Amino acid sequence: MMLRYEEALRLEPARLRGEIARGRWHGPTGGLAPGHVQANLVVLPEHLALSFFTFCQRNPKPCPILEVTEPGRPHVTDVAEADLLREIPRYRVYRDGDLVDEPLSIEPHWREDLVAFLLGCSLTFEDALVRASVPVRHLEANRTVPMYETRIPCRKAGPFRGNLVVSMRPVPGHLVSKAVLITSRFPFAHGSPVHVGDPAEIGIEDLEVVRFGDPPVMEPGDVPVFHACGVTPQVVAMQSRPELLMSHEPGHMLVCDIESRALEAL
Amino acid sequence: MMLRYEEALRLEPARLRGEIARGRWHGPTGGLAPGHVQANLVVLPEHLALSFFTFCQRNPKPCPILEVTEPGRPHVTDVAEADLLREIPRYRVYRDGDLVDEPLSIEPHWREDLVAFLLGCSLTFEDALVRASVPVRHLEANRTVPMYETRIPCRKAGPFRGNLVVSMRPVPGHLVSKAVLITSRFPFAHGSPVHVGDPAEIGIEDLEVVRFGDPPVMEPGDVPVFHACGVTPQVVAMQSRPELLMSHEPGHMLVCDIESRALEAL
Repeated sequence: MMLRYEEALRLEPARLRGEIARGRWHGPTGGLAPGHVQANLVVLPEHLALSFFTFCQRNPKPCPILEVTEPGRPHVTDVAEADLLREIPRYRVYRDGDLVDEPLSIEPHWREDLVAFLLGCSLTFEDALVRASVPVRHLEANRTVPMYETRIPCRKAGPFRGNLVVSMRPVPGHLVSKAVLITSRFPFAHGSPVHVGDPAEIGIEDLEVVRFGDPPVMEPGDVPVFHACGVTPQVVAMQSRPELLMSHEPGHMLVCDIESRALEAL
Repeated sequence: MMLRYEEALRLEPARLRGEIARGRWHGPTGGLAPGHVQANLVVLPEHLALSFFTFCQRNPKPCPILEVTEPGRPHVTDVAEADLLREIPRYRVYRDGDLVDEPLSIEPHWREDLVAFLLGCSLTFEDALVRASVPVRHLEANRTVPMYETRIPCRKAGPFRGNLVVSMRPVPGHLVSKAVLITSRFPFAHGSPVHVGDPAEIGIEDLEVVRFGDPPVMEPGDVPVFHACGVTPQVVAMQSRPELLMSHEPGHMLVCDIESRALEAL
């Protein structure tokens, strides 16, 4: 039987991941396990891993690396004691740049030459915004954060190239400073915004037309605040066409054991 | 004819690197090009590069990555427009963990499968300390910063394992706070100290017995302040015995074009 949101909300990260592995939660993770780190997943064959690592180093805003596995080992131990094959609510499998599967487990696709990267995620700092009385509109409306592909090119590395993906949160004008200062304390979760204001400036024509997630909830006086997004590697995959790239379903993250504040900039 | 220190001190980074390439400066770079980034060099065969990249990700205090080259290309473009083969005053070549050469150029050793990593260096923030009236004793005495191997193990990755190397600066007790706060603004240059106070706590028995650099100059009331050091990979190389690892001579860094403040944490 599936969990209801209110039930999922009460679970500690390890319990929540256990329920996910048992197939009892396939939904997005925004708002769950408040105050804990959430992570993006990218899995690639070892022969592409050095280039992707370099891509992340050259694009630290969308791709802050939390943890990297040894080739062939689908487990992480630092940010969570987690099985990467089935403890994420839903996955995406890209072959030669095409989305070929959206499974609940990537066990059937696992190989001995695969390397997994966990990248930081902006859901990590939403609890800090809420506690500072900065409204997080999509959480209040129980939606997934809206995500857009921009016209800002990432710096390329090896075969990896593509445009920056951003998440967007509408913030009342007098709270934009607070949103910038709070999120800047979380560089491993994309840090401060990459853009504040006019979406057209970064190539987004219509905020209603999202690339991933749900359309935004805007209140009068809200200013769009854009953070670099860990879905960027999926757009890069579609453009770079690696033999195999596996990732999470956008918005459906690995919920980690460590608390966000444990990784605040010092 | 060799440059005198006073002449070298007047040169912009690109001019200084040009003189180094022409063999007119083989000395340490501490104090030169004040306010500019300085970098550690690590060169490895591509088949070891993914493991070393992971080692750096797991040990960000000693190994903050500034730039990584595509395999076979001995040039960098971001932190400096520099030729890595001859624009560092002196190099070290390790084969199977043994130091086999200390050349002025690594051109004879270069191969098509080599990848170069530039890591941040604590010399980067010394100018900020001086400008904030925190004395930097080794600069005042025209010595190289003292460096020590600690008993703190790094987190391992693939074949790479070994102990943390630290640099030490004696700081008057009432200025330790200032030294912590200023250096914390430079996470790409090792950031805040890893230890303040008793050297024995981290396995250093005698501050006079340095592993690299010159013995320290301590004034009455000074407290030892230890920063993670980018020479760590050289100690790791000696323990892990990779087929080939090339690096800079400790204290003899790549002097970069960009200013330190351009990389301050935001």
